[in-house]
Amino acid sequence: MKRVMIRQMMLVAFLLVFGHAVAQTDPLPSWNDGAAKKAIVEFVKTTTEKSSPKFVPPEARIAVFDQDGTLWVEHPMYSQVVYCLDRVPAVVKAKPDLAQVDPFKTVLSGNREAMAKFTMPQLEMILAATLTGMTVDEFTAEAKKWLESAKDPRWKRSYTELTYLPMQEVLKYFRVNGYKTYIVTGGGQDFVRLYSDKVYGVPPEQVVGSAGGTKFGYDKSGKPRLTKEPQLLLNDDSAGKPEGIHLMIGRRPYAAFGNSIGDKQMLEYTQAGDGARLMMLVHHDDDKREYAYGSKSKVGTFTDALMGEAKKKNWTVISMKDDWKQIFAFDK
Amino acid sequence: MKRVMIRQMMLVAFLLVFGHAVAQTDPLPSWNDGAAKKAIVEFVKTTTEKSSPKFVPPEARIAVFDQDGTLWVEHPMYSQVVYCLDRVPAVVKAKPDLAQVDPFKTVLSGNREAMAKFTMPQLEMILAATLTGMTVDEFTAEAKKWLESAKDPRWKRSYTELTYLPMQEVLKYFRVNGYKTYIVTGGGQDFVRLYSDKVYGVPPEQVVGSAGGTKFGYDKSGKPRLTKEPQLLLNDDSAGKPEGIHLMIGRRPYAAFGNSIGDKQMLEYTQAGDGARLMMLVHHDDDKREYAYGSKSKVGTFTDALMGEAKKKNWTVISMKDDWKQIFAFDK
Repeated sequence: MKRVMIRQMMLVAFLLVFGHAVAQTDPLPSWNDGAAKKAIVEFVKTTTEKSSPKFVPPEARIAVFDQDGTLWVEHPMYSQVVYCLDRVPAVVKAKPDLAQVDPFKTVLSGNREAMAKFTMPQLEMILAATLTGMTVDEFTAEAKKWLESAKDPRWKRSYTELTYLPMQEVLKYFRVNGYKTYIVTGGGQDFVRLYSDKVYGVPPEQVVGSAGGTKFGYDKSGKPRLTKEPQLLLNDDSAGKPEGIHLMIGRRPYAAFGNSIGDKQMLEYTQAGDGARLMMLVHHDDDKREYAYGSKSKVGTFTDALMGEAKKKNWTVISMKDDWKQIFAFDK
Repeated sequence: MKRVMIRQMMLVAFLLVFGHAVAQTDPLPSWNDGAAKKAIVEFVKTTTEKSSPKFVPPEARIAVFDQDGTLWVEHPMYSQVVYCLDRVPAVVKAKPDLAQVDPFKTVLSGNREAMAKFTMPQLEMILAATLTGMTVDEFTAEAKKWLESAKDPRWKRSYTELTYLPMQEVLKYFRVNGYKTYIVTGGGQDFVRLYSDKVYGVPPEQVVGSAGGTKFGYDKSGKPRLTKEPQLLLNDDSAGKPEGIHLMIGRRPYAAFGNSIGDKQMLEYTQAGDGARLMMLVHHDDDKREYAYGSKSKVGTFTDALMGEAKKKNWTVISMKDDWKQIFAFDK
C-alpha cells in the first residue's frame, strides 16, 4: 500500500471519529427544547434511519424552504424591493423622461411613506424597470455590487447577514442527513441565486423563484448573451409554489418550511404525499429581537385562517419568541 | 476504537484500492481511439486535475446532454411522438367527436406515410391532446405503462434500451469526475423525468426539457393535485436551450453534447464561457448499425452549415461509424 493511501486512511479514520462526535452533539443548538425542535429531530430520524418504517431513500430526500420571513428578515420591506428602489435613480438617468412619472417620481422623492402605499401595478412597473431589459451578466454585476454595500437600516448590517441562525442550523441538519435543500421563494430566482450558495449553502440550481424569461441573442461582436425579458414565466407564490416545484424539481418535497399565506399551497402539496412529511411555519411574534406581525401585515401575512389550518392539519408553528434562543449569528 | 469503525475503515481501504484500479482502466471502452475520445479525456483531465491552470471547482462542473439522437435513437420518429400517437385511441374514446377530425382521423387509420407528413400545427394538436388536460399523477401512470410495454419496431426492444453505450460511458465518466450531468432536451420534461434516473443515472431534477405549465388545485375530496396545462412555458430547443439552462440550472455548462441544429445555441452558449469548454456533436453516419442522416432529415437535422460552424469553432464531431466500437449495450 502506498504511503499516500495510508495517509488517506488516517484522514478517513479521523473523520469517522470526528463525525461520530458531531452526531452526538445537538444539531440545533439555537433552538429551545419544545414541540418545534422535537418535530424537526423526529422527522429527520424517522425518514433517515434504515430501520424506520418511514425511511426515505436518499435520492428522494427533498426539503424546501421559503426565503423571505422564513430564512431571513422580510420587514419592513423585502430586501429585493429595496434593491429595486435603490436602482431607480440609475434607470431614470438612462431614461430621463421617467423622472416626472409615477411611481418613479415618488421613489426619487425619497418619501418612504408614499412608497409604502404603492399599488401592485406600481410595484410591478418598478420591478420590470429595474430587473429586466439588461443582459444577465449586467444584472449579475449590478446586484452583486449592491449586495456587498447595502445595509439594513435597523441592524446596520448587510442584508445577507440577516438570516436566522436557527434556520441555518435546520438547513445544515437536513443536508448532513442526506436531504437536498431547496429555496422556493416568491423572490426573483436570478437575484437569490447570486448569494444562495454563500449565504445558505444552497447552490444556484437549487433555487426556485419567480422567474422571468430570457432571450438568447448575440452582441455586436457576435458573442452569445442572454437578455432578461419582462414576461413572467413563473410567479412563485401561493399556487405558484407547488407549480414551481414541479417545474424545477419534479419531485414532491418531504419537508416544507414557510411563514405566510403564500406558503400554504406548498405545505398542502408536501403533506399530500405518502409517508412522513414535515410542514412548518415560522411565526413572527418577537417584537424585541426581530418583528411581531401577522394577519394585518402586507408583507408576510399570517392570517388567523392560516393559523387555524395549521392546527387542523398538524402543521407545526415555530414561535420566534419561544422556540429560538438566538435569532442572528451576530447576536450575543 | 469500536469494532464497527474498524470495519468501516477496512471497507474504505478496500474502496481506495479498488477505486485506484478503476482509475487506471479505460473509462470509455466503447470508443475507438481518435480525436473525439481524446477530446473528451483531455477535457476532463484539464478541468479536474488540481494542478491544471484550467481547473474547474467541483460545484461549477456542469455538463449538458441533448437526448434525442445524442443519448438514444431518434429515428424514424422521436420516442415521445410514438407515445403520443399510441395514446390517440384512448383520447378519441374519451372524446368521440375527434374520430372524424384530422389529425386524429389519420392517426386512427394507421397510415404511417400520411402521419409522416403532419405539419407542425397538426403535431402540436396531437401533443396537446395526449400530454395535457390530465393530472400529473394520471400522466405519470399512463406514460410509465407505455414505457414498460412499447417496443421499437426495428430492434424489438424497449425504447429505453436504445441508448448509446458510448454516451452512457461519457455520462458516467463525467460524474465520476465530479460533474453534475444534465439532460437538456426538446422532449417533454415530465416524460423524460420518468425514466432519466433508471436509464441514464440522471435524477429528475437534472432534466431540463420542453415544459408546459401545471395548475395547482384540489380534487373532490380536497386533496391537492397538479393538472397539466396546454400552455408552453419553455420550448427547449434551439435558442430555448440556453434559455432553459439559465432558467433551470442558472450556471453556464462546461461541456455540451448535441447532434443537430437544435443544439447549436446550447453549444455556442457553452463555448462563450471562460476557460476550457467542450462542445461535441454526434453525427449519424452509420446506416448499418443505426441510421445515416443529416441535412435532409426532418428529425435530427445536421446541416452542412452546422458542420461548417463545428469546424470553424473547433467543436468536435463524433462519427458514430468511426468513433464508436459498439452502439448499444445489447450489441455483441
